[in-house]
Amino acid sequence: MHTRSAHRSLLVVGSVALDDIDGPFGMHRDLLGGSASFIARAASYFTRQVAVVAVVGDDFPARHVDELAERGVDVSGIERRPGETFHWVGKYADNLATRETIDTRLGVFAEFAPKLEAHHRKAELVLLGNIDPALQLDVVRQVERPMLVAADTMNLWISIKRDDLVSVLRKVHTLMLNDEEARQLAEEHNLRNAAAKILKMGPTSVVIKRGDAGALLFHGGGSFAAPALPLADVRDPTGAGDSFAGGFLGYLAYAGNFEPETIRTAMIMGSVMGSFAVEKFSVDGLRDLSAERIQQRFDEMAELVRFEGVRL
Amino acid sequence: MHTRSAHRSLLVVGSVALDDIDGPFGMHRDLLGGSASFIARAASYFTRQVAVVAVVGDDFPARHVDELAERGVDVSGIERRPGETFHWVGKYADNLATRETIDTRLGVFAEFAPKLEAHHRKAELVLLGNIDPALQLDVVRQVERPMLVAADTMNLWISIKRDDLVSVLRKVHTLMLNDEEARQLAEEHNLRNAAAKILKMGPTSVVIKRGDAGALLFHGGGSFAAPALPLADVRDPTGAGDSFAGGFLGYLAYAGNFEPETIRTAMIMGSVMGSFAVEKFSVDGLRDLSAERIQQRFDEMAELVRFEGVRL
Repeated sequence: MHTRSAHRSLLVVGSVALDDIDGPFGMHRDLLGGSASFIARAASYFTRQVAVVAVVGDDFPARHVDELAERGVDVSGIERRPGETFHWVGKYADNLATRETIDTRLGVFAEFAPKLEAHHRKAELVLLGNIDPALQLDVVRQVERPMLVAADTMNLWISIKRDDLVSVLRKVHTLMLNDEEARQLAEEHNLRNAAAKILKMGPTSVVIKRGDAGALLFHGGGSFAAPALPLADVRDPTGAGDSFAGGFLGYLAYAGNFEPETIRTAMIMGSVMGSFAVEKFSVDGLRDLSAERIQQRFDEMAELVRFEGVRL
Repeated sequence: MHTRSAHRSLLVVGSVALDDIDGPFGMHRDLLGGSASFIARAASYFTRQVAVVAVVGDDFPARHVDELAERGVDVSGIERRPGETFHWVGKYADNLATRETIDTRLGVFAEFAPKLEAHHRKAELVLLGNIDPALQLDVVRQVERPMLVAADTMNLWISIKRDDLVSVLRKVHTLMLNDEEARQLAEEHNLRNAAAKILKMGPTSVVIKRGDAGALLFHGGGSFAAPALPLADVRDPTGAGDSFAGGFLGYLAYAGNFEPETIRTAMIMGSVMGSFAVEKFSVDGLRDLSAERIQQRFDEMAELVRFEGVRL
């Protein structure tokens, strides 16, 4: 079907970082990273109304911001402050299946306390990247009448800021997290039961990201499984989950409704954008895409899971 | 669509065992186990022409064989010998995600050297359960004109009997194994690339079983992803892969053709039977099923992955 594009506004609040990534393809230094970098780029292929609120240091290359602006993203909320940009150093195992954090230097991100400008407060969709839940809560309170609030989180916050996170969840429609985080948050290994527990904490839907096992959606209406394309050439899994979130929210902004059918399609768009992201380092896999290439990969997803009904 | 049932004959050669299974639900002793026990029961819901070739000891309860016979399975190839039945003792972690083997007593299975009777040699479909590849090869050579030969294997044989396994693969149409086994066999972590390597060893299709991440099919025509139902109540993962194989081969025997569309449907039937198996201990989840319940779960699978096409 042809979808009429609504182009709702999407506000992305998260990190913009520089990453050093070591692994089977050698050390790559000062790569553009951070949740907002992936989310905004992925979303920008679906809607022209994406805005980013983030903070960078005075060491941050201006070209990264310029490039986002060229994609039509509102970068007025990317604040530049004296100091170092958030810097993450990670090392992947040879099979890319696991990674360890070698170093984290928060830099100016340590003082990140987003104050939204008037036009950002009017955002219709809000995606709270993986930041301190106290900040997530503060951001949600500044947005006037959001139609949809989505949030990501991580093991650190579940461990040390659970109360704040629980407060955020009461304001969040869609929680996106990976399987281990879902298990930790719900204190329950079984993913279906973990999702049921999380839904009782406030969100109306939970998206559980499982890397190359795809993603699961649980909401009142049941469940949906989005596959991951079996890719031959994976270079850098960094940002895959954020690219998924960007494709997911970007498509919802584009469609302008949050009906169950639309959310299913958004899950597939998330998986599509995640698949592009991991094929190259940093955000390179999200550069120079087109509606045609996204459509092509969407159609590959449909073919991957297609089967005929039968009557036994 | 309505499928015309062809009911090709399916010969299952594998183990019949007694298992002691420990884990979060306590110790369960002397449970019926073994690859052929799960495969034959799962397949019997699709076709009445299932035959089992296996060996049991004189300690083996006759009721297990009687029950299979009551399901219409040809049990004339289940040989009873003096000695102990193959006995496996395993312990699952509390989350059921991992298990360790506590003890393996081969008993009469150590001398298993299947000699097929004349009517078994005429089997149209053959499923070689996870036994020594030298035996698998010997069985294949005894079958006169098989339309389809499928085989399972395991890490042990890949490690210590690789040459025999490579010989078997030249005779096998469909290899079914789990993700770690596929990686080990292909010496390649990436599953798509691992599958491509395995396809060069002889099989025309490879089915990679991934537990609660579903199963992937790779063949000349591309790839297919079968989801796993997110189940709320998982009791015993033992036999899930074999139940998948039984549903898969049983459906192919029922359909009587191996067209790409049929194989996709068979993958889903495999996932359906695996989902029933893990909900109860031993083969209990495969007891008392009906075409209606299988159909219902098949339809749940379809609903789980359904999404509408879009044009961006």
